[in-house]
Amino acid sequence: MHKRKSFVAVHAGAGYHSTNKETEYRSVCKDACQQAMEVLRNGGTSLAAVTKAISVLEDSPLTNAGFGSNLNLDGIVECDASVMDGLTLTSGAVGCITDVQNPVRVAERLVQKQIQGGLSLGRIPPSILVGPGARQWAEEQNIPLTAEGGLVTESSQRTYLKYKRKLEHQEKRQTADDNIHKKMKTEKDDLVCGEGSGVQDTVGCVCVDGHGNMAAGCSSGGIWMKHTGRMGPAAHYGVGSWAHNGCCNGKPGVAVVSSGGGEHLIKTFLAKMCADNVQKEPNASLAVSSTFKNNFLESEFLSGVEDKHGGVLVLKHLSDDDGFREAEVLWAHTTDSMCIGYQLETHDRPTTFISRLPDSSLPGKSFAMEGKNFKL
Amino acid sequence: MHKRKSFVAVHAGAGYHSTNKETEYRSVCKDACQQAMEVLRNGGTSLAAVTKAISVLEDSPLTNAGFGSNLNLDGIVECDASVMDGLTLTSGAVGCITDVQNPVRVAERLVQKQIQGGLSLGRIPPSILVGPGARQWAEEQNIPLTAEGGLVTESSQRTYLKYKRKLEHQEKRQTADDNIHKKMKTEKDDLVCGEGSGVQDTVGCVCVDGHGNMAAGCSSGGIWMKHTGRMGPAAHYGVGSWAHNGCCNGKPGVAVVSSGGGEHLIKTFLAKMCADNVQKEPNASLAVSSTFKNNFLESEFLSGVEDKHGGVLVLKHLSDDDGFREAEVLWAHTTDSMCIGYQLETHDRPTTFISRLPDSSLPGKSFAMEGKNFKL
Repeated sequence: MHKRKSFVAVHAGAGYHSTNKETEYRSVCKDACQQAMEVLRNGGTSLAAVTKAISVLEDSPLTNAGFGSNLNLDGIVECDASVMDGLTLTSGAVGCITDVQNPVRVAERLVQKQIQGGLSLGRIPPSILVGPGARQWAEEQNIPLTAEGGLVTESSQRTYLKYKRKLEHQEKRQTADDNIHKKMKTEKDDLVCGEGSGVQDTVGCVCVDGHGNMAAGCSSGGIWMKHTGRMGPAAHYGVGSWAHNGCCNGKPGVAVVSSGGGEHLIKTFLAKMCADNVQKEPNASLAVSSTFKNNFLESEFLSGVEDKHGGVLVLKHLSDDDGFREAEVLWAHTTDSMCIGYQLETHDRPTTFISRLPDSSLPGKSFAMEGKNFKL
Repeated sequence: MHKRKSFVAVHAGAGYHSTNKETEYRSVCKDACQQAMEVLRNGGTSLAAVTKAISVLEDSPLTNAGFGSNLNLDGIVECDASVMDGLTLTSGAVGCITDVQNPVRVAERLVQKQIQGGLSLGRIPPSILVGPGARQWAEEQNIPLTAEGGLVTESSQRTYLKYKRKLEHQEKRQTADDNIHKKMKTEKDDLVCGEGSGVQDTVGCVCVDGHGNMAAGCSSGGIWMKHTGRMGPAAHYGVGSWAHNGCCNGKPGVAVVSSGGGEHLIKTFLAKMCADNVQKEPNASLAVSSTFKNNFLESEFLSGVEDKHGGVLVLKHLSDDDGFREAEVLWAHTTDSMCIGYQLETHDRPTTFISRLPDSSLPGKSFAMEGKNFKL
């Protein structure tokens, strides 16, 4: 295929983005797009570009990924990340990895090792590594580690202590107070999607390079005060990221990343479900909106769940034998907001913005969706 | 629904079962069926019965699950397990858990905790726990732990040392010998599906109780000499086990467990794929065979993979408003053999046997499939 323009899009989490930090959120998305685009302009693959963008998002203390991630119950940062290569349909993931500067780099290396193939004694290279073994493998691969606790920031440590006190207070009350459920509900918003706290979720990136190869990747520190060892959606195959180049018979290429309430995304395989629908239904907006309606908000797997928090960033790639090539980027979320950035290769600078649910919509119960087309 | 007969089926791994150990393999399957049936006869749920059956399989040193599991590169047993409840569509899993007597009990407890619902501060109970955090949670839940290394047997330790020597020998040769690939191929069979070694894979159980509730569960020590932290199919959502009660509009209930080459099962979501097809296609044999053909042996996700090792145990449950109820159990595998057991509530004892690929078939390239129907 003749080399054409590449395109990259990132998001800094579906969650709540306070207006007073809007400039900072957009700035990190801009940075991630620009650095990924530099990789692409230098002939790098979409997988390399995605890994670069996610690394930039991880390095920012503002996002809930890598440095500055949420702390777990034991005050430790445990990260999940995954990438998927749409050409070889290979995915790599790490779950609950500690003290590695860029968890996404480990996921990328797992993809590369699988593509290289066979280990000695006929063993198959792993697609996912979790816990201390993942860190050990990263070290063997010379992927940079941090000192113990090196991903904790002053701010995340402060927030941890605040939540810890809250938790202890609530647990004391729980024994004394039968009416706890009502009170829990009042406090619930603080932790899951609180206004003041600026709670974010999994960050992600989707990309198509000049050869039409797609890739997707995501990274997350998981929810505040999760149990140690709780593996989130960013590490789950088919949940956090999905990429498929499509094929010659008119099946479009697609890359999707998801973000939001972990167990909601997992139960509904949100990224893969969305990608499958985009490859089946010619109208991408219809495919994404029907995914949100039928396979998420009304999913039988989430029956009984009051509020369903999720967001997706979707890239569709269409091409034909006459040289027509088009990219369509879409974002949809049931969360209060989602910070987005994207850049076409010929654009001087990325476009960044915060997509917000309309005032009339209730987070967790309805969704906002938008998109944009580009000729490549 | 009027209470009817229950049914349980187990398997001790899709892999290679030597004929001289056939009696022992069948005996552990018999034991697992009988103990699960006792749970059902005493009014236990299908989830409880599945957990019981898997516990029995885990406790046997013969299977690659729990006690007697394969050792990883560092000589440690790291277990994966999952269960899914078809009534609530809730799954629980543990990955790379160490020193817990019955990993499946942790997965079962994770399902129970999710069904119970909300944690303090609005947190959602986890669906999967991995690594040391999983063991810590098991301890908090008073699930029995073992001493360090308590799941290692004399025999598994011996085999580990044998493989370790082989690996070191091969790695030395690798630097000295460019022709390594040819030699690797000769030795490959030893580790992946060797005749002498009696290599097994993930064990599993499917069940329907007297109320028509379905459950599925599986457990595995993973492949010999895996990298520490490598999470296998038994812990992956949608891969190792899947259960769905079906519903009143004629959609049948289904429970599926998979076993075999980990990364092959993961890439194809084998259990869920098979279950989805059984719920769509009225002829269960056709559904399972088309899954093996189209979604496994010819899957685009496994292109370039020479041999595809996988097996499934499938239970379909049909009922109508006139009180008709039927169970259909099917097993299919591309591996050399699969040890199966099943029992209907009114049967005095379980039926057990080893299903083997016909001599004319090549393991990893074609599959054997059989099944049986029971009126409930």
